[in-house]
Amino acid sequence: MIDALEREGPITFRAIGYVENDFDEPAAPDRIRASESQITLDPSLVEGLRGLESGRKIMVVFHFHGSHGFELLQHPRGDRSRLRRGVFALRSPYRPNPIGVTVVDLVAIEGNLLHVRGLDAIDGTPVLDIKPA
Amino acid sequence: MIDALEREGPITFRAIGYVENDFDEPAAPDRIRASESQITLDPSLVEGLRGLESGRKIMVVFHFHGSHGFELLQHPRGDRSRLRRGVFALRSPYRPNPIGVTVVDLVAIEGNLLHVRGLDAIDGTPVLDIKPA
Repeated sequence: MIDALEREGPITFRAIGYVENDFDEPAAPDRIRASESQITLDPSLVEGLRGLESGRKIMVVFHFHGSHGFELLQHPRGDRSRLRRGVFALRSPYRPNPIGVTVVDLVAIEGNLLHVRGLDAIDGTPVLDIKPA
Repeated sequence: MIDALEREGPITFRAIGYVENDFDEPAAPDRIRASESQITLDPSLVEGLRGLESGRKIMVVFHFHGSHGFELLQHPRGDRSRLRRGVFALRSPYRPNPIGVTVVDLVAIEGNLLHVRGLDAIDGTPVLDIKPA
Protein backbone atom coordinates (compact mmCIF):
# COMPACT_ATOMS: atom_id res chain seq x y z
CA MET A 1 0.00 0.00 0.00
CA ILE A 2 2.78 2.40 0.84
CA ASP A 3 4.31 1.49 -2.49
CA ALA A 4 1.05 2.20 -4.25
CA LEU A 5 0.82 5.59 -2.56
CA GLU A 6 4.36 6.42 -3.58
CA ARG A 7 3.75 5.31 -7.14
CA GLU A 8 0.77 7.60 -7.47
CA GLY A 9 2.00 11.09 -8.15
CA PRO A 10 0.45 14.29 -6.91
CA ILE A 11 -3.11 15.08 -8.00
CA THR A 12 -3.39 18.62 -9.25
CA PHE A 13 -6.40 20.92 -9.53
CA ARG A 14 -6.97 24.58 -10.27
CA ALA A 15 -9.38 27.04 -8.72
CA ILE A 16 -12.57 27.52 -10.73
CA GLY A 17 -13.34 30.66 -8.72
CA TYR A 18 -12.93 32.37 -5.37
CA VAL A 19 -15.01 33.10 -2.29
CA GLU A 20 -15.63 36.70 -1.28
CA ASN A 21 -17.09 37.54 2.10
CA ASP A 22 -16.40 39.56 5.24
CA PHE A 23 -14.35 36.87 6.98
CA ASP A 24 -10.60 37.35 6.85
CA GLU A 25 -10.05 34.61 9.37
CA PRO A 26 -12.04 31.66 10.67
CA ALA A 27 -15.07 32.80 12.66
CA ALA A 28 -17.52 30.85 14.76
CA PRO A 29 -19.12 28.36 12.38
CA ASP A 30 -22.62 29.51 13.31
CA ARG A 31 -21.76 33.09 12.50
CA ILE A 32 -20.11 32.37 9.18
CA ARG A 33 -22.89 29.98 8.17
CA ALA A 34 -25.56 32.60 8.66
CA SER A 35 -23.70 35.09 6.45
CA GLU A 36 -23.80 35.57 2.75
CA SER A 37 -20.80 34.93 0.55
CA GLN A 38 -20.20 35.48 -3.11
CA ILE A 39 -18.46 32.96 -5.33
CA THR A 40 -16.86 34.62 -8.34
CA LEU A 41 -16.57 31.95 -11.00
CA ASP A 42 -13.99 32.08 -13.75
CA PRO A 43 -16.06 33.80 -16.48
CA SER A 44 -15.00 31.18 -19.03
CA LEU A 45 -16.93 28.55 -17.01
CA VAL A 46 -20.23 30.41 -16.65
CA GLU A 47 -22.09 28.14 -19.07
CA GLY A 48 -21.48 25.31 -16.59
CA LEU A 49 -24.01 26.92 -14.25
CA ARG A 50 -26.94 26.32 -16.59
CA GLY A 51 -29.65 24.43 -14.71
CA LEU A 52 -28.70 25.63 -11.23
CA GLU A 53 -31.66 27.42 -9.67
CA SER A 54 -31.67 30.00 -6.92
CA GLY A 55 -33.52 28.85 -3.85
CA ARG A 56 -31.96 25.39 -4.13
CA LYS A 57 -29.00 23.94 -2.32
CA ILE A 58 -25.60 23.37 -3.91
CA MET A 59 -22.45 21.66 -2.72
CA VAL A 60 -19.29 23.74 -2.74
CA VAL A 61 -15.91 21.97 -2.73
CA PHE A 62 -13.07 24.26 -1.75
CA HIS A 63 -9.44 24.42 -0.70
CA PHE A 64 -8.64 25.36 2.90
CA HIS A 65 -5.80 27.45 1.51
CA GLY A 66 -4.78 28.89 4.87
CA SER A 67 -4.45 25.47 6.45
CA HIS A 68 -0.96 24.00 6.65
CA GLY A 69 -0.15 20.78 8.43
CA PHE A 70 -2.43 18.49 10.39
CA GLU A 71 -2.55 16.09 13.30
CA LEU A 72 -4.27 12.73 13.09
CA LEU A 73 -5.97 13.30 16.45
CA GLN A 74 -7.52 16.68 17.21
CA HIS A 75 -9.77 18.19 19.84
CA PRO A 76 -13.14 18.94 18.21
CA ARG A 77 -13.15 22.64 17.26
CA GLY A 78 -9.90 22.98 19.22
CA ASP A 79 -11.82 22.61 22.49
CA ARG A 80 -9.34 20.97 24.89
CA SER A 81 -12.15 19.96 27.23
CA ARG A 82 -13.32 17.49 24.56
CA LEU A 83 -11.59 14.18 23.85
CA ARG A 84 -9.45 14.09 20.74
CA ARG A 85 -10.90 12.39 17.70
CA GLY A 86 -9.47 11.22 14.39
CA VAL A 87 -9.22 13.85 11.69
CA PHE A 88 -11.50 11.79 9.41
CA ALA A 89 -14.21 11.93 12.08
CA LEU A 90 -13.95 15.74 12.16
CA ARG A 91 -14.59 18.63 9.78
CA SER A 92 -11.38 20.36 10.88
CA PRO A 93 -9.54 22.29 8.12
CA TYR A 94 -6.25 20.71 9.28
CA ARG A 95 -6.41 17.53 7.21
CA PRO A 96 -4.02 15.46 5.09
CA ASN A 97 -5.70 17.04 2.05
CA PRO A 98 -7.20 20.36 3.14
CA ILE A 99 -10.46 20.05 1.20
CA GLY A 100 -13.71 21.50 2.49
CA VAL A 101 -17.17 20.41 1.37
CA THR A 102 -20.22 22.42 2.40
CA VAL A 103 -23.83 22.40 1.27
CA VAL A 104 -25.07 25.98 0.99
CA ASP A 105 -28.20 27.84 -0.06
CA LEU A 106 -27.94 29.30 -3.54
CA VAL A 107 -29.54 32.71 -3.07
CA ALA A 108 -29.05 34.11 -6.56
CA ILE A 109 -26.94 33.85 -9.69
CA GLU A 110 -25.87 36.94 -11.65
CA GLY A 111 -23.67 36.06 -14.58
CA ASN A 112 -20.55 34.48 -13.09
CA LEU A 113 -21.43 35.51 -9.52
CA LEU A 114 -23.14 33.09 -7.15
CA HIS A 115 -24.62 34.51 -3.99
CA VAL A 116 -24.76 31.81 -1.35
CA ARG A 117 -25.65 31.54 2.33
CA GLY A 118 -23.99 29.18 4.75
CA LEU A 119 -20.50 28.85 3.32
CA ASP A 120 -17.95 28.29 6.11
CA ALA A 121 -14.95 29.47 4.11
CA ILE A 122 -12.97 32.68 4.56
CA ASP A 123 -12.49 35.47 2.04
CA GLY A 124 -10.21 34.48 -0.83
CA THR A 125 -10.82 30.74 -0.54
CA PRO A 126 -10.24 28.94 -3.86
CA VAL A 127 -13.28 27.00 -5.05
CA LEU A 128 -12.59 23.63 -6.67
CA ASP A 129 -16.04 22.42 -7.67
CA ILE A 130 -19.77 23.11 -7.47
CA LYS A 131 -22.28 20.26 -7.57
CA PRO A 132 -26.01 19.86 -7.10
CA ALA A 133 -26.61 18.98 -3.42
CA MET B 1 -10.65 37.49 -12.23
CA ILE B 2 -8.77 35.75 -14.99
CA ASP B 3 -5.65 37.39 -13.58
CA ALA B 4 -6.47 36.07 -10.13
CA LEU B 5 -6.96 32.59 -11.53
CA GLU B 6 -3.65 32.76 -13.34
CA ARG B 7 -1.87 34.05 -10.27
CA GLU B 8 -3.07 31.15 -8.20
CA GLY B 9 -0.89 28.17 -8.93
CA PRO B 10 -2.00 24.58 -9.09
CA ILE B 11 -3.46 23.03 -5.93
CA THR B 12 -1.89 19.69 -5.22
CA PHE B 13 -3.13 16.76 -3.18
CA ARG B 14 -2.08 13.16 -2.63
CA ALA B 15 -4.16 10.02 -2.32
CA ILE B 16 -4.80 8.98 1.28
CA GLY B 17 -5.93 5.56 0.05
CA TYR B 18 -7.56 3.66 -2.78
CA VAL B 19 -10.92 2.11 -3.62
CA GLU B 20 -11.13 -1.61 -4.28
CA ASN B 21 -14.25 -3.14 -5.75
CA ASP B 22 -15.46 -5.24 -8.69
CA PHE B 23 -15.96 -2.32 -11.07
CA ASP B 24 -13.23 -1.83 -13.63
CA GLU B 25 -15.31 0.70 -15.52
CA PRO B 26 -18.29 2.90 -14.74
CA ALA B 27 -21.44 0.83 -14.17
CA ALA B 28 -25.04 1.89 -13.76
CA PRO B 29 -25.07 4.14 -10.70
CA ASP B 30 -27.80 2.07 -9.06
CA ARG B 31 -25.76 -1.09 -9.45
CA ILE B 32 -22.53 0.35 -8.16
CA ARG B 33 -24.30 2.06 -5.25
CA ALA B 34 -25.78 -1.20 -4.03
CA SER B 35 -22.37 -2.86 -4.00
CA GLU B 36 -19.73 -2.99 -1.35
CA SER B 37 -16.34 -1.39 -1.81
CA GLN B 38 -13.25 -1.38 0.33
CA ILE B 39 -11.16 1.69 0.97
CA THR B 40 -7.58 0.82 1.82
CA LEU B 41 -6.22 3.74 3.79
CA ASP B 42 -2.52 4.54 3.95
CA PRO B 43 -1.59 2.65 7.15
CA SER B 44 0.23 5.71 8.50
CA LEU B 45 -3.13 7.54 8.68
CA VAL B 46 -5.14 4.89 10.50
CA GLU B 47 -5.27 6.87 13.76
CA GLY B 48 -7.30 9.47 11.87
CA LEU B 49 -10.24 7.06 11.79
CA ARG B 50 -10.74 7.17 15.57
CA GLY B 51 -14.34 8.11 16.29
CA LEU B 52 -15.82 6.80 13.04
CA GLU B 53 -18.44 4.19 13.80
CA SER B 54 -19.71 1.41 11.59
CA GLY B 55 -23.39 1.73 10.79
CA ARG B 56 -23.00 5.49 10.27
CA LYS B 57 -22.62 7.44 7.06
CA ILE B 58 -19.37 8.99 5.91
CA MET B 59 -18.51 11.32 3.05
CA VAL B 60 -15.84 10.11 0.65
CA VAL B 61 -14.02 12.65 -1.52
CA PHE B 62 -12.21 11.06 -4.44
CA HIS B 63 -10.44 11.71 -7.71
CA PHE B 64 -12.17 10.63 -10.93
CA HIS B 65 -8.77 9.47 -12.13
CA GLY B 66 -10.04 8.00 -15.39
CA SER B 67 -11.79 11.21 -16.40
CA HIS B 68 -9.94 13.46 -18.80
CA GLY B 69 -11.43 16.59 -20.29
CA PHE B 70 -14.90 18.01 -19.87
CA GLU B 71 -17.62 19.99 -21.60
CA LEU B 72 -19.46 22.82 -19.90
CA LEU B 73 -22.81 21.50 -21.17
CA GLN B 74 -23.54 17.78 -20.99
CA HIS B 75 -26.50 15.49 -21.46
CA PRO B 76 -27.46 14.09 -18.04
CA ARG B 77 -25.89 10.62 -17.76
CA GLY B 78 -24.94 10.91 -21.43
CA ASP B 79 -28.61 10.47 -22.41
CA ARG B 80 -29.00 12.44 -25.65
CA SER B 81 -32.79 12.45 -25.28
CA ARG B 82 -32.37 14.81 -22.31
CA LEU B 83 -31.52 18.50 -22.64
CA ARG B 84 -27.94 19.44 -21.90
CA ARG B 85 -27.23 21.03 -18.54
CA GLY B 86 -24.27 22.83 -17.05
CA VAL B 87 -21.57 20.64 -15.59
CA PHE B 88 -22.03 22.29 -12.16
CA ALA B 89 -25.68 21.20 -12.20
CA LEU B 90 -24.61 17.59 -12.82
CA ARG B 91 -22.65 14.89 -10.99
CA SER B 92 -20.81 13.91 -14.18
CA PRO B 93 -17.19 12.81 -13.71
CA TYR B 94 -16.17 15.03 -16.64
CA ARG B 95 -15.63 18.27 -14.73
CA PRO B 96 -13.06 21.08 -14.67
CA ASN B 97 -11.68 19.44 -11.50
CA PRO B 98 -12.63 15.76 -11.58
CA ILE B 99 -13.54 15.45 -7.91
CA GLY B 100 -16.28 13.11 -6.72
CA VAL B 101 -18.10 13.41 -3.41
CA THR B 102 -20.37 10.59 -2.22
CA VAL B 103 -22.03 9.83 1.08
CA VAL B 104 -21.77 6.11 1.78
CA ASP B 105 -22.68 3.65 4.51
CA LEU B 106 -19.72 2.66 6.66
CA VAL B 107 -20.27 -1.06 7.07
CA ALA B 108 -17.16 -1.94 9.07
CA ILE B 109 -13.63 -0.83 9.87
CA GLU B 110 -10.78 -3.33 10.19
CA GLY B 111 -7.48 -1.62 10.84
CA ASN B 112 -6.80 0.52 7.78
CA LEU B 113 -9.62 -1.07 5.73
CA LEU B 114 -13.02 0.60 5.50
CA HIS B 115 -15.86 -1.48 4.13
CA VAL B 116 -18.46 0.82 2.63
CA ARG B 117 -21.69 0.48 0.65
CA GLY B 118 -22.84 2.91 -1.98
CA LEU B 119 -19.58 4.26 -3.35
CA ASP B 120 -19.94 5.13 -7.05
CA ALA B 121 -16.24 4.95 -7.83
CA ILE B 122 -14.41 2.32 -9.85
CA ASP B 123 -11.63 0.01 -8.70
CA GLY B 124 -8.36 1.85 -8.12
CA THR B 125 -9.90 5.26 -7.53
CA PRO B 126 -7.66 7.47 -5.39
CA VAL B 127 -9.38 8.71 -2.21
CA LEU B 128 -8.62 12.29 -1.20
CA ASP B 129 -10.55 12.68 2.03
CA ILE B 130 -13.03 11.08 4.41
CA LYS B 131 -15.36 13.19 6.53
CA PRO B 132 -18.31 12.60 8.83
CA ALA B 133 -21.48 12.92 6.72
